[in-house]
Amino acid sequence: MKLRLSGIPPLSAAVIDPAIPLGAMTSPSSPSPDDSLHITKRRLLDVGLATLLERGYNATGIQDLLVATSVPKGSFYHHFASKEDFALQVVDRYLAEVNALLEQSLGDSDRAPLERVRSFFERLMAFYASQGYLGSLIGLLGQELAAVNTAFRRRMEGAFDGIARRLADTLEEARRRGDLPAEMDPFQAANLMLDCWEGAAARSRLLRSPAPLEAAIEVSFRTVLA
Amino acid sequence: MKLRLSGIPPLSAAVIDPAIPLGAMTSPSSPSPDDSLHITKRRLLDVGLATLLERGYNATGIQDLLVATSVPKGSFYHHFASKEDFALQVVDRYLAEVNALLEQSLGDSDRAPLERVRSFFERLMAFYASQGYLGSLIGLLGQELAAVNTAFRRRMEGAFDGIARRLADTLEEARRRGDLPAEMDPFQAANLMLDCWEGAAARSRLLRSPAPLEAAIEVSFRTVLA
Repeated sequence: MKLRLSGIPPLSAAVIDPAIPLGAMTSPSSPSPDDSLHITKRRLLDVGLATLLERGYNATGIQDLLVATSVPKGSFYHHFASKEDFALQVVDRYLAEVNALLEQSLGDSDRAPLERVRSFFERLMAFYASQGYLGSLIGLLGQELAAVNTAFRRRMEGAFDGIARRLADTLEEARRRGDLPAEMDPFQAANLMLDCWEGAAARSRLLRSPAPLEAAIEVSFRTVLA
Repeated sequence: MKLRLSGIPPLSAAVIDPAIPLGAMTSPSSPSPDDSLHITKRRLLDVGLATLLERGYNATGIQDLLVATSVPKGSFYHHFASKEDFALQVVDRYLAEVNALLEQSLGDSDRAPLERVRSFFERLMAFYASQGYLGSLIGLLGQELAAVNTAFRRRMEGAFDGIARRLADTLEEARRRGDLPAEMDPFQAANLMLDCWEGAAARSRLLRSPAPLEAAIEVSFRTVLA
């Protein structure tokens, strides 16, 4: 018997009609990179992100998604091979958004390197705020599926590693300018910042509050990068 | 249609026969506080912890547990009202173990306060090692169920808050001795250490490695508490 979580509520209004669709954070006035996506596929991915962020993978039912989006089952399987394929495409789109925030922040050559790093975490916090402080989808699905699904585990670990490397490049730039101690290992520092951030994102999900994220930014800049 | 995770493996040997039952970490020679538990109930809770740590809540099937433990269904429902009740009892036992580590570490008055705090995290890392670096059950279930189950969310948040308060008491002792800056807020510092720790535990679950945990301990003592 595989019991369903008792008292699980129906999909919330925020899930069925996400206030801020993906892409709105990065390019409010320019066309979204999603514009080439079939409208039905994009709607499934938008509602899928909100649902996965709220419930996680195993408690997300495809049937609920179909009802919420008024999409017939055949159409879902036209766009996605399986629930796993669907979730991985939601993750890819989410990561594209995080990477866009990363490029916008770190690529801003008018600002000092450490300001760019801070700007990334502040934008990420605004992204979480737009989703109601449900934390990090990479962290969430990585945790839920790490031990039982190798495809997810590798994707999530690759995502963390890629973000840490990109942050480390900018920390290295700061180090060379003398804004960080010469003996600092930028990649190690970037990984530590990221781990603290993910722990804070998890706590903010429990509390539904930005406070742990704000504290993580402050402490990273006061201590890890001191 | 509520799809099951494709390719989910059967319960692993480590789950069916946990190498180190709960209680072994804290009191190797003295009787376990679990001794009063019915043997069947204890076995279900031991295998339940290993299974929940590996799979999370939603992917844990009661039927798999019954097969793995050779316990009949009626006996399970004699000891537990529901799957949720079962998982909450596993969590309570896990928290009792973490709290025992906390008391053993922080109550050791022969050592300086900061050494006691470090000892707690080192013991916790040994506890995670005994489970194959699957991370923190509180973090894991808190993430998975935060948005859909209020009982779990409150229990996990209460657990973090209790641990942070206990750590803060010892940090306050260190502050009063002059081992920490006078202007430090011990409760805020304890929460930050805990969030970094949970993020590192999540990363160690992805990597199945102690490296992120070791880094979190080092950085906490080099920076947050500097």
